[in-house]
Amino acid sequence: MSTTAVSEQLLTMGRAARVASRALAKLHSQAKDHALTGIARALRTRQEEVLAANRQDLEEGKRAGLSAAMLDRLLLDAERLDGIAQGVDGVVALPDPVGEEFDGRLLPNGLRIARRRVPLGVIGAVYESRPNVTVDIAALCLKSGNACILRGGKEAIHSNAVLARLVRGALAEAGAPVDAVQFVESTDRALVLQLLQMKDSIDLMIPRGGADLVRFVAEHATMPAVTGGIGVCHTYVDKSADLDGAVRITENAKVQRPTVCNALDCLLVHSSVAPKLLPPLAKELGKAGVELHCDARSLALLGAQQAARAVPATDQDWGKEFLALVLAVKVVDSLDEALAHIERYGSGHSEAIITEDHAAATRFLDEVDAAAVFVNASTRFTDGGQFGLGAEVAISTSKLHARGPMGLRELTSYKWVVQGSGHVRP
Amino acid sequence: MSTTAVSEQLLTMGRAARVASRALAKLHSQAKDHALTGIARALRTRQEEVLAANRQDLEEGKRAGLSAAMLDRLLLDAERLDGIAQGVDGVVALPDPVGEEFDGRLLPNGLRIARRRVPLGVIGAVYESRPNVTVDIAALCLKSGNACILRGGKEAIHSNAVLARLVRGALAEAGAPVDAVQFVESTDRALVLQLLQMKDSIDLMIPRGGADLVRFVAEHATMPAVTGGIGVCHTYVDKSADLDGAVRITENAKVQRPTVCNALDCLLVHSSVAPKLLPPLAKELGKAGVELHCDARSLALLGAQQAARAVPATDQDWGKEFLALVLAVKVVDSLDEALAHIERYGSGHSEAIITEDHAAATRFLDEVDAAAVFVNASTRFTDGGQFGLGAEVAISTSKLHARGPMGLRELTSYKWVVQGSGHVRP
Repeated sequence: MSTTAVSEQLLTMGRAARVASRALAKLHSQAKDHALTGIARALRTRQEEVLAANRQDLEEGKRAGLSAAMLDRLLLDAERLDGIAQGVDGVVALPDPVGEEFDGRLLPNGLRIARRRVPLGVIGAVYESRPNVTVDIAALCLKSGNACILRGGKEAIHSNAVLARLVRGALAEAGAPVDAVQFVESTDRALVLQLLQMKDSIDLMIPRGGADLVRFVAEHATMPAVTGGIGVCHTYVDKSADLDGAVRITENAKVQRPTVCNALDCLLVHSSVAPKLLPPLAKELGKAGVELHCDARSLALLGAQQAARAVPATDQDWGKEFLALVLAVKVVDSLDEALAHIERYGSGHSEAIITEDHAAATRFLDEVDAAAVFVNASTRFTDGGQFGLGAEVAISTSKLHARGPMGLRELTSYKWVVQGSGHVRP
Repeated sequence: MSTTAVSEQLLTMGRAARVASRALAKLHSQAKDHALTGIARALRTRQEEVLAANRQDLEEGKRAGLSAAMLDRLLLDAERLDGIAQGVDGVVALPDPVGEEFDGRLLPNGLRIARRRVPLGVIGAVYESRPNVTVDIAALCLKSGNACILRGGKEAIHSNAVLARLVRGALAEAGAPVDAVQFVESTDRALVLQLLQMKDSIDLMIPRGGADLVRFVAEHATMPAVTGGIGVCHTYVDKSADLDGAVRITENAKVQRPTVCNALDCLLVHSSVAPKLLPPLAKELGKAGVELHCDARSLALLGAQQAARAVPATDQDWGKEFLALVLAVKVVDSLDEALAHIERYGSGHSEAIITEDHAAATRFLDEVDAAAVFVNASTRFTDGGQFGLGAEVAISTSKLHARGPMGLRELTSYKWVVQGSGHVRP
């Protein structure tokens, strides 16, 4: 771990965030929702300012030679901006986790005890080019009573700066603490490392982006950091699988949105169904432009297929997150072999089995060690919205604090509230 | 953060713990309880072996000039050993958190989803002289399906080694994975730093001991570590307090066991009740041998009292964990002043208010940011057993993962279990 001196500017932001977090923790839902509604309104009424800043980012990005995919991630238009505002509306509609009590009970000695949800304090977020992240994380932090310090990618600096200003303006207008949302406007890369040193000011660091960013944060953060976003996802087609279902689920998990962490990377197929499953599956996937990286047995089954774009797999294909229309395929002889492959190569994100056999389904759910385990469903469902959390700030693959999609509740801690009437410990 | 090469011996232990943790995660409660019952039995039938090893520790301790308090912490006798065995019986009686499902529901699209508790994996524990910790942590880890690597203090090395051997023997006899409990037998201090580097083998590190040990672990651990064990605890006597209750609660919180983290360190008294409360309180505390470190106003009220052992407080007395029969005392003019003092000097462990005023109680519970907040009760109640968790491995003052007493459930994570019938994401 490298350490570095933290600039006075960041230290000042950290202190302001701490003060704001204390005020925010006391705000009732109504006041927070009022501020959030103001943010959504500002996103709609001041669209042109945001779009102008975004055009500047896009122009600079083109000049810098960003790829078409990168430029698309950067792009905001009226529709996308309205989508961001709708996201904020959605956060308003979610229940406030703060103040919720659970495990409440009366102890035998008459003490009344409960755990009460409280905000974590100050959340740091370091992310890449998508400017919507600025608003999404600010809204979720605000609703959960946490202050936040945001550091977006340099490609989106103009868009992010305007969005942050708009959010802070709405906070001020609503009478909420403005420093509850702060954005690091400098694009100096050294500031990321400095942010990661600020364990006294930042209670939890959330990296949102590619594997390199997540690893950098995990390595250098001095405060707790969410580990996640890297998904090497498997689907095992058992010998008892419904093969039509297997084709549909595999196609969805691989093709529906190949660039995200819950997309399928490796298909494991039981040898008894491989001859029947793989040719039609390869045909379907071929239509969608998927390239198959096949082990020797699956390649032999597909070699004759004209439609299939199948090449021999290399050792690097196992345990690889492709984030593209590429799927590794391997034939196995048993559930045990599939489980062993997943244990060795999985990243603990999302793993699925396709089976009609109850015992196989049960073993898979019991034994696979991952944030989300599926029977007869696409790994693409690992998502805060899909899981009914309303929204998510990240998907955690660590086992501490929160695992899988992190929604509002996962941005809280709790305190024990104990009420007596002169109770002393015997 | 310093880094250091990890010895082959520890790496081997780490790999064995990982393998054992996978086997342990699959054991049913019955099998785990069978092993725990065997441990309790061995503690009773092989008492003499343990006591002989303990005598050796005590002799070496005396020769090394350990204090009477240290020697007492080290001491095992038939009664204490039976207490440890009873602790294991208690763990057998607790419900197994592993496999418990929560937040289970049917999503609108027909997916059945739930969070299911799973073990964390491998727990590391670094602790000081009390040999009971070896058995306590091993039992709690075993019940919660976690393997553990234990490193006790060098003073208790002979006792701990025998206890660990006895635990492992009981595991073997019960057919449970023996390497689920491993003890580092070397007293080489460098090994602690090495253990803290083993983030691939150890999922959570628990320091059990004084502030220096906790800080050392927080600073050097590369894996998540429990922060806790340091309690600068306040009790605020409000103007509306029942003063007899205030005396009883203060006396209990300070005197009942002054060497532990939930013992009271600082009493804040509203100026309107200070003249009436402090003289009789000082008399009670004086009987118990408590020394009062008083601010100017409280000293003025106590100066005339013959019974009170009162001296002027220094700046170092505020925010100090005394772990002894010493109490800092300060007169404040309002609840606000008390809240500000606690915010500035508290360690986020346990804080109490004595009041008959509902609004004051509510504000205190709402605004004090600590693991446990009390109304009209002694801070000594912050304890896994007292809170109804059955037992505890540590008391966390961090907000991530678990806060306050950590029992069996706090030694688990969860996975999302999702069951469909051919579900694909639209």
